[in-house]
Amino acid sequence: MSDNQPVAVGLLGLGTVGCGVCNVLAQNAAEIERRTGRPLRVTHASARDVNKQRPVDLKGVRFSTDPAAVVNDEAVDVVVELIGGHQPACELIERALHNGKHVVTANKALIAVSGNRLFEAARTAGVALAYEASVAGGIPIVKMLREGLAANRIERVIGIVNGTTNFVLTEVSRNRRPFSDALTEAQRLGYAEADPGFDIDGIDAAHKMTILASIAFGVPLQYDKVHVESAAAVELRDVDYAKELGYCIKHLGIAKRCGGAIELRVHPALIPLTSLLADVNGVMNAVEVDGNAVGPTLCYGAGAGAGQTASAVIADLIDVVRTIGADPRQRVPALAFQPGALASMPVVEAGEVVSAHYLRLQVEDRPGVLTAVTEVLSSLGISIEAVLQKEPADDGASVPLILLTHPVKGTDICTAIGRIERFDTVLDPVVRYRMEPA
Amino acid sequence: MSDNQPVAVGLLGLGTVGCGVCNVLAQNAAEIERRTGRPLRVTHASARDVNKQRPVDLKGVRFSTDPAAVVNDEAVDVVVELIGGHQPACELIERALHNGKHVVTANKALIAVSGNRLFEAARTAGVALAYEASVAGGIPIVKMLREGLAANRIERVIGIVNGTTNFVLTEVSRNRRPFSDALTEAQRLGYAEADPGFDIDGIDAAHKMTILASIAFGVPLQYDKVHVESAAAVELRDVDYAKELGYCIKHLGIAKRCGGAIELRVHPALIPLTSLLADVNGVMNAVEVDGNAVGPTLCYGAGAGAGQTASAVIADLIDVVRTIGADPRQRVPALAFQPGALASMPVVEAGEVVSAHYLRLQVEDRPGVLTAVTEVLSSLGISIEAVLQKEPADDGASVPLILLTHPVKGTDICTAIGRIERFDTVLDPVVRYRMEPA
Repeated sequence: MSDNQPVAVGLLGLGTVGCGVCNVLAQNAAEIERRTGRPLRVTHASARDVNKQRPVDLKGVRFSTDPAAVVNDEAVDVVVELIGGHQPACELIERALHNGKHVVTANKALIAVSGNRLFEAARTAGVALAYEASVAGGIPIVKMLREGLAANRIERVIGIVNGTTNFVLTEVSRNRRPFSDALTEAQRLGYAEADPGFDIDGIDAAHKMTILASIAFGVPLQYDKVHVESAAAVELRDVDYAKELGYCIKHLGIAKRCGGAIELRVHPALIPLTSLLADVNGVMNAVEVDGNAVGPTLCYGAGAGAGQTASAVIADLIDVVRTIGADPRQRVPALAFQPGALASMPVVEAGEVVSAHYLRLQVEDRPGVLTAVTEVLSSLGISIEAVLQKEPADDGASVPLILLTHPVKGTDICTAIGRIERFDTVLDPVVRYRMEPA
Repeated sequence: MSDNQPVAVGLLGLGTVGCGVCNVLAQNAAEIERRTGRPLRVTHASARDVNKQRPVDLKGVRFSTDPAAVVNDEAVDVVVELIGGHQPACELIERALHNGKHVVTANKALIAVSGNRLFEAARTAGVALAYEASVAGGIPIVKMLREGLAANRIERVIGIVNGTTNFVLTEVSRNRRPFSDALTEAQRLGYAEADPGFDIDGIDAAHKMTILASIAFGVPLQYDKVHVESAAAVELRDVDYAKELGYCIKHLGIAKRCGGAIELRVHPALIPLTSLLADVNGVMNAVEVDGNAVGPTLCYGAGAGAGQTASAVIADLIDVVRTIGADPRQRVPALAFQPGALASMPVVEAGEVVSAHYLRLQVEDRPGVLTAVTEVLSSLGISIEAVLQKEPADDGASVPLILLTHPVKGTDICTAIGRIERFDTVLDPVVRYRMEPA
């Protein structure tokens, strides 16, 4: 292929993101060609329904319901996979790689679950499999970790990587609405699906953190090792109490080096109101990376959205196009480290993770209760950082008691909670959140 | 050179940053080799004083006072220039390029002033001239603009890119100290030089914005076109009044597309306290980029410091090393756009820039003054967004009057100020700041 010939792009999937890619390629065609030195053209596309009305101009694009025709089209140089889900996306990508085509995908679930195998297939075929759009489209975090911070030993990646959940938690905090009301609002605005579990329960964030952990530490993708807790249990009153103590509650993804092991977890956590992550509101995403040379550095942007995802997909396309014909070893390694240099590191069990904790107890309003509770904690070596005792509830008989602990192992806090819940003066199950320095 | 042979790095300058580069290369050697597949080794270095005590292990490094020996050393693959300033850095880089060596530099002044010529020399020689470390070492902003956001038409780049000035302004705001006291504190802590003009007056920020504007818009480097205003005139009382109105004062670098022209300026400006940039405090830097597909996106990190600059220098080294031997067209173009695609765009004169303004007048405390002032503004088509009238000063006779205007051209606000200052009731020169949406 000569140097300034158009690059032929085959597109699998023409939903919101697929149309976004077409439209940004068209709208920014001149600017993109000024950068790449050659035009990028969608020449072949597939979608389930070809008759659907779409806000996109497909003049000159071969368009059918047959994705196999796209990946087998000899004229296509790069395949962009925007179908999502596991099958048929997986076998289409494999077919495209096998056919010697470079592939760009936004499919985080597929990369998190089957990436190890797919990257190996790409390597065998000598082509690129690029996936910037799979994590926080509006933030070039894959590039930042793989290249921008490549001089560092990465110590921690901590992020707000699901816009839907962050929107709901922001609504709870800002407008003091219960979680379920805020979720209904998110659904009404189209930010949340009818079945919001994928976002709210942390599955989507876990896919993204699987990918970020791999390229931060040079470990294989290991989605099944992520410890995941839903955001759905977050209560308005805990958001209020946290605020009173100088914190907010965010649904965080955390990948952290811890001795010779790594922590890999998604859960709600308290972070200081003074941290930048605390100011990441609504559908916005942010990822903070701590490197041993660079210190803390943070990237912020919209996570999802057609424009953001298209921006990431096309950045990948430009990278891929630049190195078409290059020795594959001159490309950035797929998972940031040389394939032979990926090293398994054990993932710390949730019970072994050490964090400060927020505990909320509903206790009888009488003397000695706090003493009994603190005795349990101190007997387990857990020290207390702060105590907040609230006014009695309407019944006059019970009060919420909030404790912030110093860092403690998960199993120890569970033991403590078990003992505390056995007191007659402790009325409800203890509510517990981890705290994360940010 | 075979694939896993060590890469020989020649180092010009062994000050804080040079030692930082050596130390990070040594400390993270294993991690870096896992990424690159080959070791990076400093083999030859030069500094003005070879006998100085340095916190660095130079075992096995050829070390002299002769930088020419480094750039002429046939065994050196990549030269890292950390001397700073114009000469001899410029001719050493030219010599290295001419000798077919790739060059990595942290020299923002040199790139901003002589970059067009140096990049052309690199192109002629078929080698890379990389400069990530020249702008905000802790933020991979050059990579983000050149690659991560390459799909976008960039509309605006706005940043806090000088840590010294930001530290001083943060001190003024947080601890309510006058600017000069805060500057003395910054000097005591080693954040500011004995002659702080380079930072405080905006020269350093102008160098950085010159570079960011070029790679954002695809225009040649044009340092002489940057409109620069010092931060030194910022007064504590204006910081206080701004805060009362919901703003803070930051020393901003702004590069903005404006029709077929660009704005390119460095000056103090009011930004809303609710913006993320308002939370960028102390020596930290942040750059917000608005792209037409991605929307607003922001990167945050420490600007200067040995570790941060070393992180950026070594990231460049890794990029350069990966493509050693590649077709030069397979590298990212030096200024983000293909050399032939750089297009001059006129830079808007300061007087033609349209911004909302903050005006502070010291006026006699008697009826009719506000009316007279607002009449002047309205006669020039300038509408008022907010008015803040303070208590009389100790003398009881005069009061500060603060006005926020709607967006207005610089020349119009100057005309207005000229007329207002002619009133007998207006006692001092009018203080004026631009406001910037962020």
